[in-house]
Amino acid sequence: MSGPESKHLDFSSISPSEFFYRNRQMAGFGNPAQATYSTVRELVENSLDSCEDAGRAPVIAVSLETTASSQVVISVEDNGLGLPYDEVPSAFGQVLYGSKYGLRQKRGTFGLGVTMAVLYGQITTDSPVIIHTQSDNRGWVYRLYIDIENNHPLVEESSERIRSETGTTVTVRIEGDLPRAASRIDDYLRLTSIATPHARLVLRIDDETTLDVGPWTEILPPQPMEAKPHPRSADTELVRRTMAGKQALSLKDYLIGSFQQVGRKTASEFIRFLGLDSKRRVGDLSRTEISRISSVLKSYDSFSRPDGNSLSPIGREAFLKGVQSLYEPEYFSYASRGPLEWDGYPFILEGVIASGAAFPKGEEPTLFRFANRVPLLYDASDDILTKSLKRVSWSRYGIPNGVPWGIFVSFCSTKVPYQAAGKQSIATLDEIESAGLALFRALGRGALKQTKRQKRSKRSQKRMREMKASLRMIARFSADLAEVNTQYADELAANLFRGDEQ
Amino acid sequence: MSGPESKHLDFSSISPSEFFYRNRQMAGFGNPAQATYSTVRELVENSLDSCEDAGRAPVIAVSLETTASSQVVISVEDNGLGLPYDEVPSAFGQVLYGSKYGLRQKRGTFGLGVTMAVLYGQITTDSPVIIHTQSDNRGWVYRLYIDIENNHPLVEESSERIRSETGTTVTVRIEGDLPRAASRIDDYLRLTSIATPHARLVLRIDDETTLDVGPWTEILPPQPMEAKPHPRSADTELVRRTMAGKQALSLKDYLIGSFQQVGRKTASEFIRFLGLDSKRRVGDLSRTEISRISSVLKSYDSFSRPDGNSLSPIGREAFLKGVQSLYEPEYFSYASRGPLEWDGYPFILEGVIASGAAFPKGEEPTLFRFANRVPLLYDASDDILTKSLKRVSWSRYGIPNGVPWGIFVSFCSTKVPYQAAGKQSIATLDEIESAGLALFRALGRGALKQTKRQKRSKRSQKRMREMKASLRMIARFSADLAEVNTQYADELAANLFRGDEQ
Repeated sequence: MSGPESKHLDFSSISPSEFFYRNRQMAGFGNPAQATYSTVRELVENSLDSCEDAGRAPVIAVSLETTASSQVVISVEDNGLGLPYDEVPSAFGQVLYGSKYGLRQKRGTFGLGVTMAVLYGQITTDSPVIIHTQSDNRGWVYRLYIDIENNHPLVEESSERIRSETGTTVTVRIEGDLPRAASRIDDYLRLTSIATPHARLVLRIDDETTLDVGPWTEILPPQPMEAKPHPRSADTELVRRTMAGKQALSLKDYLIGSFQQVGRKTASEFIRFLGLDSKRRVGDLSRTEISRISSVLKSYDSFSRPDGNSLSPIGREAFLKGVQSLYEPEYFSYASRGPLEWDGYPFILEGVIASGAAFPKGEEPTLFRFANRVPLLYDASDDILTKSLKRVSWSRYGIPNGVPWGIFVSFCSTKVPYQAAGKQSIATLDEIESAGLALFRALGRGALKQTKRQKRSKRSQKRMREMKASLRMIARFSADLAEVNTQYADELAANLFRGDEQ
Repeated sequence: MSGPESKHLDFSSISPSEFFYRNRQMAGFGNPAQATYSTVRELVENSLDSCEDAGRAPVIAVSLETTASSQVVISVEDNGLGLPYDEVPSAFGQVLYGSKYGLRQKRGTFGLGVTMAVLYGQITTDSPVIIHTQSDNRGWVYRLYIDIENNHPLVEESSERIRSETGTTVTVRIEGDLPRAASRIDDYLRLTSIATPHARLVLRIDDETTLDVGPWTEILPPQPMEAKPHPRSADTELVRRTMAGKQALSLKDYLIGSFQQVGRKTASEFIRFLGLDSKRRVGDLSRTEISRISSVLKSYDSFSRPDGNSLSPIGREAFLKGVQSLYEPEYFSYASRGPLEWDGYPFILEGVIASGAAFPKGEEPTLFRFANRVPLLYDASDDILTKSLKRVSWSRYGIPNGVPWGIFVSFCSTKVPYQAAGKQSIATLDEIESAGLALFRALGRGALKQTKRQKRSKRSQKRMREMKASLRMIARFSADLAEVNTQYADELAANLFRGDEQ
């Protein structure tokens, strides 16, 4: 037997792009069909975020072109903010590089999605990504690859080219499967149009326009504001980082300046609760004290809830309008819960319940999920919202009662706790689960009320018809008796009920 | 309205440890209960891999200690290979650093799991990881943190301390939830003992031994061999990398030296099919030619299947022994499929079907999943093996027929296509799905045969009893007629059937 000395292993480090290159199924690029869908999704979300940043109603054109081989050329064009010349290479050619790390609601979050599409295109078709972008009065075209081992952009070509307006067009060529992905992409864009009702979305497949939806409203939602972290999200790492560069501040001023929902009074009370001197300089705190501050910040009850201004919910009117426009439901009703909180991050849950021929029949309503206005089409069964839906006794709300139902539920937060880098399902967290249950029950009650009202109105219409018939007979009979023309009696009866039937 | 110029965003890059710090639910550290489970799992898997590398029967002791607060101290001790002095800091304090990047079956793969446990412990309890390890005749103790922003180890202390034998003990303190995690951990260790029947696994909770299972066999499985990549896994990135440093080689020699299943004959045929000259130097190939070589390598039919020697399946006897020892089933049967292939990676599927009181009743057998000998306890519904199981008509195999059934299915490959960094479910791939279906049907047939045999044997026993009774009567009757003592006839009849009843 050889000794352990002879068996030492080789150790090495890999770059994040190498990690996702090796594990691409984790980011939603596991097979050609899924990769086709994910590429569209990542590019469209980037575009929508860029339009919101620009404060413009988004107009997004997606174009898919099949080729002789199994390759698909995917191109997404937006009227967004555009990218500054010198940020293009890193934004498209470096994994975990991006602009979306601040605390406010955004679709994208990771600096991962678009670079994954670039990486996947490169390894399957050996083609560079092509970016045409303009952020001021000059436009640029880039063709670039990713140096995967070192996680760096490799620019093949860059040149000046003006665009008709600011915005960005990104084109990638991937090994794809359009026949299997096409209906998902169509679903995705339709649902996106519900969650972003101020956008116009166009899909062209091989130069034929197959979808052109929205905008359903002219009103742009207010832009969510960047927020400071909430104290209950302050793990030791965050506390240490926020303290860096504030060594000379007093503990009190540090707390007020670094966190939301901490004013002078709250800060004083908190520090008294901690048992520290509020004039202690941050730089003088020991490691143990810093660790204690973090653990008390996380558990202290008296901070107000996190600020909802960093969120951008869809809103009652816009949400209903989108569902109405696309599904033409018979009944529909809206409810919302929040702002609530998970681990110091604010969130809002909104939902629309609707019934009509557009939905499939089932024991419970069909669920359509959104996170930060992004439709989630995969991994439904592991999502906490799906699990909550299944816990509701729908029969109590008269569902199903012959008609099929759908529920659109939108979760928004400064941070979405996705279960995986493919961003398809929300992780199991108690706060979200109980908010989900409350929302679904509220939607159930809304549906029950509407169906009852509808039943009542049907009943009263029926009674009206009966009364009208009886009255007509009485009128005729009386007219006969009085030897009056019976036609006059008919008109009288008809006039009495005018406007009640429709 | 302000122009787009005023709205340029701040761009920045984040380190991989920063990425997983922000998205810890993706790696299985979403809440305290899950984090407790994941920490145990990651440490145990590292230990098992280390014992296999050392060629020793693993003895792994897991210890969980609760504290006054909601913290849990988790310690895992093994008799594995130990770590060389200078590799300890990076192996525990740097995300995406490891020894497991080669092409052979391993439990761990990413250089992510253990560092996630360290990171989670550090941000929730501000405690360092403590490592006591010995790889030769000197032992070392380290206490270290991770510099998350820069993804570097921060060693707080390191000193020499001898151990009784080579191996490693790792201790982390995390914010955990032992009451909610304990039964999962127990399940996890029991199932691990089925998939690694040559290991002994001990669990101590607050100094009380709550579990001590295995080994079920003394035989160590042969170590899987490191393999060269299969040509069908050769995307352009892999081709370019394997070409680096081989610029002077001919195309033919490059192919033979870089890939498995490519000998002189196969290489010549392949190059003829490509239409290139087999003497072309690698360094003279154009980008287009390299890209073409990659795409033809991936689609060329005539390469043999990838080498199964890089795999280490559990094996019929060991698998059955583990299931028998832990579940004491009435019936059981084994089947396997493979080596097969997904995208150029070899895989084997093995399964044991068993019935007995230990399994829950249901429409279909309860599924226990393993990937590279690791039990998968979460995210079952999205796993391709679960989906395949549901597609089988179990009633055709007489299941359920009153008794509850379980299926243990083990997937092993040089690369497991996990859906997420938490490593809980296998992605949807056609090759795995059809192998799963074939395996489940084979197990169904095995179960049907066994239950039929059992029924047959019950029927024949019944017939025997009837014949014996008849024969005894005939014998008595004949004895009576012959005026012989009837007791002798009884004994005769009894002797005839000796051994047939039991």
